[in-house]
Amino acid sequence: MAEGRRERADAARNRRAILKATENLLAEHPPAQVSVERIAAAAGVGKGTVFHRFGSRAGLMRELMLERAHALHESVTDGPPPLGPGASPRQRLLAFLDAVVDVVGRNKGLLAALGQAATAPRDAQEDSREQHSVYGFWHGHISALIAEERPDLDAELLAHILLGALQNGPIVHLLGQGETRRLAVSLRLLVTGMLEG
Amino acid sequence: MAEGRRERADAARNRRAILKATENLLAEHPPAQVSVERIAAAAGVGKGTVFHRFGSRAGLMRELMLERAHALHESVTDGPPPLGPGASPRQRLLAFLDAVVDVVGRNKGLLAALGQAATAPRDAQEDSREQHSVYGFWHGHISALIAEERPDLDAELLAHILLGALQNGPIVHLLGQGETRRLAVSLRLLVTGMLEG
Repeated sequence: MAEGRRERADAARNRRAILKATENLLAEHPPAQVSVERIAAAAGVGKGTVFHRFGSRAGLMRELMLERAHALHESVTDGPPPLGPGASPRQRLLAFLDAVVDVVGRNKGLLAALGQAATAPRDAQEDSREQHSVYGFWHGHISALIAEERPDLDAELLAHILLGALQNGPIVHLLGQGETRRLAVSLRLLVTGMLEG
Repeated sequence: MAEGRRERADAARNRRAILKATENLLAEHPPAQVSVERIAAAAGVGKGTVFHRFGSRAGLMRELMLERAHALHESVTDGPPPLGPGASPRQRLLAFLDAVVDVVGRNKGLLAALGQAATAPRDAQEDSREQHSVYGFWHGHISALIAEERPDLDAELLAHILLGALQNGPIVHLLGQGETRRLAVSLRLLVTGMLEG
């Protein structure tokens, strides 16, 4: 019993250490240079442990993205304003888009790495289902806030346009070069003009 | 000599008839129902002629898209305002986005069909080169007009955001359902707000 608990605690600690090491490495290096070997060394575990926990490098990248998406989800539902409830829809929308750009852009090229993983035959369906659910939540939140602030606009379509920016090849490329600030500034400009137009 | 000329004239006439028939059929039916058999019958040619001229159904769809992109290019360079030279950058930008949405949306789901063609292994590189050149021209034109009207904005990135809308899955789906007008209206709203913001 005690041993089983310790094993689970070890597993959870390894999982967190591996995710944290990946995040740190991706903040400093292009994704192509962040190998499983390097991640394992930085996390202080064996390469086998990484594969055991995440199945593959693509699986690890996917987990990292989903972890952040879940954290953002919690901030939106239960966190302090302006991300969480309590601020105006306009303030919440601007804060949420900043946060989404941060999630997508914080580790250079992560979205691109995920995109590649999603086209790999093996896990294609699983990836696309998970990405779909993240996209679905982001889209639902953005369109609800637009509708609240400006019920006369086509909130559903506008939310797709704003999120489309995060998936467009040339923009993903700019994010991979660390240009997240540029994207956040331009999205903010579009949203401000849209809500006041 | 005379025979060679007539053959070339026949080939050109067949090519035009096939493209025209495809355009008409796509305006009335979902792409999946527009088979090469049906196109050939409508154009008054044999099925073999379609394959001889365009290589494949995907090749034909690609040609149709490129024809329209070229026609739009000419309107922008040499046509009357507001698409062509002579109108204000703001008027030209709004007219151009309307025209791009029209090109992408006129034949339901054409962009989606092109996307599928681009992932087929055989012509993948060729497709991506051609799409790249269409995208490159559209992006260059949009960002030049934004820069002319508002030199203080990040024209390059904003043009990518606007064009990203045309490639985002859920929007392509809406276009496939004939919702081109909605996209044109929302893009116009974003651009107006952006230029006046």
